[in-house]
Amino acid sequence: MSDYQAPLKDMQFVINELAGLDKIASLPGFEEATADTVEAILEQAGILASEVFSPINQSGDEAGTHIDNGIVVSPDGFVDAYQQFVENGWQGISQATEVGGQGLPYLVHSATTEMWSASNIALALCPLLTTGTIEAISQHASEALKSRFLEKLVTGHWSGTMNLTEPQAGSDLAAVRTRAVPEGEFYRITGQKIFITWGEHEMSENIVHLVLARLPDAPAGVKGISLFLVPKYHVNDDGTLGERNDLKVVSLESKLGIHASPTCVMSYGDAGGAIGYLVGEPNNGLACMFTMMNHARLDVGMQGVGLSERAYQRALSYAKDRVQGYAPGQEGRVTIIHHADVRRMLMQMRALTEASRALAYVSTAEYDLAHSCKLKEEKAKHQRRIDLLTPVAKAWSTEMAQEVTTLGVQVHGGMGFIEETGAAQYMRDARILTIYEGTTGIQGMDLIGRKLLRDKGQAMGELVSELNSFKSELEAETAELDSISRHFSDALQALDETTEWFLEQAPDNPELAGSIAVNYLMLVGNVVGGWLMAKSAIAARRQLAAGADDDFYRNKINTAIYFAEHILPRSEAQRHTIQAGSSSVMSIAVDSFGC
Amino acid sequence: MSDYQAPLKDMQFVINELAGLDKIASLPGFEEATADTVEAILEQAGILASEVFSPINQSGDEAGTHIDNGIVVSPDGFVDAYQQFVENGWQGISQATEVGGQGLPYLVHSATTEMWSASNIALALCPLLTTGTIEAISQHASEALKSRFLEKLVTGHWSGTMNLTEPQAGSDLAAVRTRAVPEGEFYRITGQKIFITWGEHEMSENIVHLVLARLPDAPAGVKGISLFLVPKYHVNDDGTLGERNDLKVVSLESKLGIHASPTCVMSYGDAGGAIGYLVGEPNNGLACMFTMMNHARLDVGMQGVGLSERAYQRALSYAKDRVQGYAPGQEGRVTIIHHADVRRMLMQMRALTEASRALAYVSTAEYDLAHSCKLKEEKAKHQRRIDLLTPVAKAWSTEMAQEVTTLGVQVHGGMGFIEETGAAQYMRDARILTIYEGTTGIQGMDLIGRKLLRDKGQAMGELVSELNSFKSELEAETAELDSISRHFSDALQALDETTEWFLEQAPDNPELAGSIAVNYLMLVGNVVGGWLMAKSAIAARRQLAAGADDDFYRNKINTAIYFAEHILPRSEAQRHTIQAGSSSVMSIAVDSFGC
Repeated sequence: MSDYQAPLKDMQFVINELAGLDKIASLPGFEEATADTVEAILEQAGILASEVFSPINQSGDEAGTHIDNGIVVSPDGFVDAYQQFVENGWQGISQATEVGGQGLPYLVHSATTEMWSASNIALALCPLLTTGTIEAISQHASEALKSRFLEKLVTGHWSGTMNLTEPQAGSDLAAVRTRAVPEGEFYRITGQKIFITWGEHEMSENIVHLVLARLPDAPAGVKGISLFLVPKYHVNDDGTLGERNDLKVVSLESKLGIHASPTCVMSYGDAGGAIGYLVGEPNNGLACMFTMMNHARLDVGMQGVGLSERAYQRALSYAKDRVQGYAPGQEGRVTIIHHADVRRMLMQMRALTEASRALAYVSTAEYDLAHSCKLKEEKAKHQRRIDLLTPVAKAWSTEMAQEVTTLGVQVHGGMGFIEETGAAQYMRDARILTIYEGTTGIQGMDLIGRKLLRDKGQAMGELVSELNSFKSELEAETAELDSISRHFSDALQALDETTEWFLEQAPDNPELAGSIAVNYLMLVGNVVGGWLMAKSAIAARRQLAAGADDDFYRNKINTAIYFAEHILPRSEAQRHTIQAGSSSVMSIAVDSFGC
Repeated sequence: MSDYQAPLKDMQFVINELAGLDKIASLPGFEEATADTVEAILEQAGILASEVFSPINQSGDEAGTHIDNGIVVSPDGFVDAYQQFVENGWQGISQATEVGGQGLPYLVHSATTEMWSASNIALALCPLLTTGTIEAISQHASEALKSRFLEKLVTGHWSGTMNLTEPQAGSDLAAVRTRAVPEGEFYRITGQKIFITWGEHEMSENIVHLVLARLPDAPAGVKGISLFLVPKYHVNDDGTLGERNDLKVVSLESKLGIHASPTCVMSYGDAGGAIGYLVGEPNNGLACMFTMMNHARLDVGMQGVGLSERAYQRALSYAKDRVQGYAPGQEGRVTIIHHADVRRMLMQMRALTEASRALAYVSTAEYDLAHSCKLKEEKAKHQRRIDLLTPVAKAWSTEMAQEVTTLGVQVHGGMGFIEETGAAQYMRDARILTIYEGTTGIQGMDLIGRKLLRDKGQAMGELVSELNSFKSELEAETAELDSISRHFSDALQALDETTEWFLEQAPDNPELAGSIAVNYLMLVGNVVGGWLMAKSAIAARRQLAAGADDDFYRNKINTAIYFAEHILPRSEAQRHTIQAGSSSVMSIAVDSFGC
């Protein structure tokens, strides 16, 4: 028995009712992605997640990883669990069939990512990084590199990593110093990289490192970084593995969470230079990196959904089990789920988890539509939408995961603070999500700078206009949804107003974007979340009207109302905060901050 | 060199300008608590905190505690640091001079508690529990017990504990099963207690356990629990220590934070019954416990202030040091404090920390006024105010500590997730604060049930009326404070409206109080925080007008404006959420929650 069960019915509901699987399945190449097939696939994934990944989640957290004579030792059961993951072909689920993938929509990949992350986020990080590696190689590498590396990555027999930052660089990749010197067909790579997740391990046969480095003649800054493929083991022409490359793990970080995933300091070229291969054009590493990154950002959003779901399941189970105190209208001592405040916390967790899932799945559906749609204008519109939603899906879902996982601890009371209980692990694990693959601040700047200012509000205008049409649709619905309609309308107005206001003010105030970026992003997340929750209430009503007599659909409506009444009103506060602008944010001079 | 410096100037500012030390010093018994004396005392405390407590905070977290042959081993340096604390008389700072204390106001004790908590919360928990023990004994124990135990507790040579809960009980003390059987002048205590902070250790010569237990003929429920004093070592008539009592530590919990403080499972009476002495009347244990508890709640609020302050100091120091990226109007790469979003996070941390400190100190000042004021009506009014503010000071300050400490991690980016950095420890340590001494949910119910409903809104009415007068005062201030005035006025209206609304609705809806309690408490905290921040802005303006030319005072005004623009607007969201009532909170039936 496992304590995590994949919420298959919820996932199906979002996939079919909100993300529109039917529309995706009508696109060329996705014909096999019918609702039935997807349901069967997710059911299988759910079994692996709950029966194999989940049981070693807490033990993996306790054991952590360590280096033994240059080898990273992963916790008991991890090698075997990863093997099962590979054997069942999960790595390549949404990769092209030509390279050994299953060719299913990214939406399906995302749903499985939710399950891997919920059941064992530390383990799931390994395939997550492989996916980014596959994307970068598929889109930017030469045919020779593709044919040598891609298939083994798609099967998961080899895993991938992203080697971006260095001690002095942080999020600022302009400061990258790792060097790449050409030598015939390849390059000699020398330098140190930090924060390399699953940078070294024994779960896969080979590790394909993607490494940002500078060519000898590279210009300064981000325009002078290039991307290199640096394998752990060299690959012979016949595809067999050769000697070890000149790279090694130097140390592992001791972290707040995701203990079972080794976070490596990697050293390249201590014995003369690791052999690497250029991916894409010289000095174009940043573009290649964004390919990995955008993908990874959506996946990290999904990790937020997964951890929120798991924290909710555990809190619910505890609340139904733990007897304590008395409640109005109940005889004798009650389980704590009868206490209104515990109920509030569970509803909050539930509402935020459902909204995060909706936002994340709908975003990945846009990705599928943008990639596979053949109509040029529609394709471009979907591309604008996914560009707009990616930072929101990443940052909002992971910020909500902070709130949900900390509430999960709170529901457990004193027991929540005891590590054995398990609730604290989700909170610790979740804490990295708003940091890696670009902090919430960086997502905010991406949204407000690249996605709003740069296109002069086109993508956001399209979204707001769609939401306005929906608002009318919602107003025409039954009185049961009145409070949703009212709160959604207020929140949408806040978004509309602050967007206009910002576009007007921005040219005169260079500090404005940074000052309001995060609050603006959170407002967008709330409004989009509120929209999708309202849509789910309407869909649930339709199901009930069609004869479904099911608590599941009633709960969708109840949860949507809760979201409208408890989360959407935050938009009001965000509106005030955004329109306060940069003056109080920047009011204290750097030098007098300590006073 | 230490990385924590007591914010003495901030503390003095709050003590003198907001908490009104001069008024307290005018009360009989507090004549010596002049501003100069208090300043000198706090300076000394600051030295002990930063030079002795702080340097062993992180090493203590890493080392944790363990049991070796029945003895709890504390981390290196703890015994010595505690010894210095005792030798300098800090334990008895606000205790009566008759029992060896220094007779200073509780306000001064609170300021020192902030420093002990900031510098080493795990260590500081030991004296914090001793204080609760002293309060309970002072107010409820017989003269014989007092003369035998009090003085050694006041000096800190002996420490104290609270033994309340048991595995099956949690926050519901009606379920306590530990038994006390009379035997001549004493009682034989038998049972197991959990979550006993510093329940066993070698830092003090003796440990005085206060234990809730049931007499053989006790009625069921909370009306049948009594409080017993159970010493670790028996005390002879001449005050020397005798044999060990029949009690022992069984195990220590593995916790998310406060690793250096042993959280013990204690067993009483395995060898026939521990000898204990009744404190207060039989079956009146709950009242005695609340004496400890109310005190401890204010002190836990202070722990929140301390951890917030420390997280802020560390984040600020990192932000001033870490070079990364570029900022508008700045040449070359900049320290991250130049980024507007980092600035926003620092301002948020600063504003919440200052507001928490103001709320906490003002509350403890009310405690002093209530206890020492000789005018009957005024005394009663201060008592109503401290009763009203205690749950708010406890819950709001500690909830804000969650927000501040997690922002502290965020400011550090990836480094924040690495334990070595230290920022994560504050977040882990802070996580217990909203749980122990009554969860935020319990504080909410205390506020809305005992403090609002039961007195039909009298105490809250007095507060709102005082805030309304202040609002007029604020409106008459200069245009510089306009935005404070506007946001404060809106927030106050939200409080006034929701209070009226609740008092009207409550009789017809037994689930309403529990459904809105936490949101209502957070609203009260915001409004009171906003009031005190506005007061501090006015006080700072007065200082500047009087010729003080100081960034310190300008920053007080800037921080107050930030609070008004970024925190007070939350009141709007809370108003909507509160007035949504209980229907969506309770909309999903217990049995269909899993659907």
